[in-house]
Amino acid sequence: MDFKIAVLAGDGIGPEISVQGVDVMSAVCEKFGHKVSYEYAICGADAIDKVGDPFPEETYQVCKNADAVLFSAVGDPKFDNDPTAKVRPEQGLLAMRKKLGLFANIRPVQTFKCLIHKSPLRAELVENADFICIRELTGGMYFGEKYQDNDKAYDTNYYTRPEIERILKVAFEYAMKRRKHLTVVDKANVLASSRLWRQIAQEMAPNYPEVTTDYMFVDNAAMKMIQEPAFFDVMVTENTFGDILTDEGSVISGSMGLLPSASTGESTPVFEPIHGSWPQAKGLNIANPLAQILSVAMLFEYFDCKEEGALIRKAVDASLDENVRTPEIQVADGAKYGTKEVGQWIVDYIKKA
Amino acid sequence: MDFKIAVLAGDGIGPEISVQGVDVMSAVCEKFGHKVSYEYAICGADAIDKVGDPFPEETYQVCKNADAVLFSAVGDPKFDNDPTAKVRPEQGLLAMRKKLGLFANIRPVQTFKCLIHKSPLRAELVENADFICIRELTGGMYFGEKYQDNDKAYDTNYYTRPEIERILKVAFEYAMKRRKHLTVVDKANVLASSRLWRQIAQEMAPNYPEVTTDYMFVDNAAMKMIQEPAFFDVMVTENTFGDILTDEGSVISGSMGLLPSASTGESTPVFEPIHGSWPQAKGLNIANPLAQILSVAMLFEYFDCKEEGALIRKAVDASLDENVRTPEIQVADGAKYGTKEVGQWIVDYIKKA
Ligand SMILES: CC(C)[C@H](C(=O)O)[C@@H](O)C(=O)O
Ligand SMILES: CC(C)[C@H](C(=O)O)[C@@H](O)C(=O)O
Repeated sequence: MDFKIAVLAGDGIGPEISVQGVDVMSAVCEKFGHKVSYEYAICGADAIDKVGDPFPEETYQVCKNADAVLFSAVGDPKFDNDPTAKVRPEQGLLAMRKKLGLFANIRPVQTFKCLIHKSPLRAELVENADFICIRELTGGMYFGEKYQDNDKAYDTNYYTRPEIERILKVAFEYAMKRRKHLTVVDKANVLASSRLWRQIAQEMAPNYPEVTTDYMFVDNAAMKMIQEPAFFDVMVTENTFGDILTDEGSVISGSMGLLPSASTGESTPVFEPIHGSWPQAKGLNIANPLAQILSVAMLFEYFDCKEEGALIRKAVDASLDENVRTPEIQVADGAKYGTKEVGQWIVDYIKKA
Repeated sequence: MDFKIAVLAGDGIGPEISVQGVDVMSAVCEKFGHKVSYEYAICGADAIDKVGDPFPEETYQVCKNADAVLFSAVGDPKFDNDPTAKVRPEQGLLAMRKKLGLFANIRPVQTFKCLIHKSPLRAELVENADFICIRELTGGMYFGEKYQDNDKAYDTNYYTRPEIERILKVAFEYAMKRRKHLTVVDKANVLASSRLWRQIAQEMAPNYPEVTTDYMFVDNAAMKMIQEPAFFDVMVTENTFGDILTDEGSVISGSMGLLPSASTGESTPVFEPIHGSWPQAKGLNIANPLAQILSVAMLFEYFDCKEEGALIRKAVDASLDENVRTPEIQVADGAKYGTKEVGQWIVDYIKKA
């Protein structure tokens, strides 16, 4: 294949981990005989500082013309503490999602044996957890009509049938490729939008007779995910509920710094770590590059390059087993590895494989 | 004092645990020289079956004229599986909340030493957890304008300044009575309604200079509650977020069957277990009455009868210590106690105290 990759490094630790992702991408392409080219573009606080827009038109064009976006992280505390700031890095994320039509956010929740002890859950509950949260990403309350004055405010949780159908299709298809168990999460006992979601899911379910589809209220799902995470295979839900549940899901694995995600839709797909820009660690060479590197694995898998993805996953597992780890997951008397060293080790592993 | 109590037993195990709550109420009143009278009223599936309305006008009148409502649980699976059902038990809950103006749902999350091992979290994380979730209960998406047809649907997350001010006042006052730490949970980086909540909280905070107030996005709160539950003292949030977070909070304690809640507001306050109607256990004398009994403790505390509340809590702790427990929390070789037996033991303890 011939990959044209848009690289959006963003803020904080973004640039450091981005480099590791790119190096791994290149190493795998070389090994498997793919061509790859990169185009770099600005976003987030970096882009606000430079051109006053967290997702400038030029960046959008670069993304649109690429096969995939390798994204790192955005966010800078100087904006959080400035109530007068009119433009914020997060708006760049929302703009990217909307402009690229990234309606499906795919978040695998997986555990790594050697990191189970980092989970806040009891080991026996979490060790068999292996599921995918699918969050609708361009509709609902985040994008619905809003109003605010000094005395009242509202947001509108608006969904149309095509928006719901296309995300449910993604979810059913993921379920088909996995253990064939789909959980549709809503609040259909109270919300009209949820009732439409549930109605459409019930209409579509017969088209996937092999998939066991169940329906769960969001409050129950928030509990079930802690009480019995191994229950889930594929979970799908709307934007706001998904925001909360995907984050809850990521934390139970005990390996937040290792989890990648994909956002796919109408145009170029985006692959990124689920963690943020960790501004305090910027430039210290301590950030864990594995989530970024695993997002490269998701990228290959998206293009049906299964062996390429598998090799990256194997390299990551090997690095963990050999205690080639960044400080936050290092064993007590382990050697010290930084962001670069972990990335380099994985590149070498791939070359030698 | 002279207590006039409306008793709403509801469905499933409701009637069984209701009796235990009433008996404990009576025993405490006798001991402390309070008068108490009860008026019984129907609600939930029971009321649908009898009069076609899950919260009939007559029940409303009984509640309105009482000092407090002792509520048990509503819900029957026959309604869940019937998509043609126009009236559902849950609507009775919503009607009760709206009609009695129960805008503040107070949910203490506490752990019981002997039940820590039941928590899905690692013991060291959860053993010091002791916080209160305050959920706005009569506004937001649950009650905002709704629309649904075959092709689109929406719900409106609408809040007015007075609605926000009154619930935040409750929250600040709870914080003053506790460890003086309030966490306001919202999604102010995306939602207009959240921005109004945050603005009003920031306006009110200077009136409570002793309270440390912090602001947290709902996705972060869902993670923090699992990663470090001991961080929280009082948490306050809007209706939908509160639905999810209070349930998440209840499960981390490992003692869902023991947690009570209060809903307070413009008229008569309601005290109830957080658990549901558990229809499968109906009539089996196996349901744990402790959440209902502890809701009686909350009732006394609401009326500033601290000793009365404390005695009930002491009795409950003693029952747990002596292994006088219902099956789901019984120790391996413990004696068998049913709903009635646990309730009776606590009544006896109170009488002898
Ligand atoms: C920054 C924010 C707008 C964003 C969201 O809630 O979508 C983030 O929390 C996420 O989950 O990607
Ligand atoms: C039954 C339902 C309407 C209700 C709610 O979400 O408010 C319940 O889940 C609760 O939390 O009390």
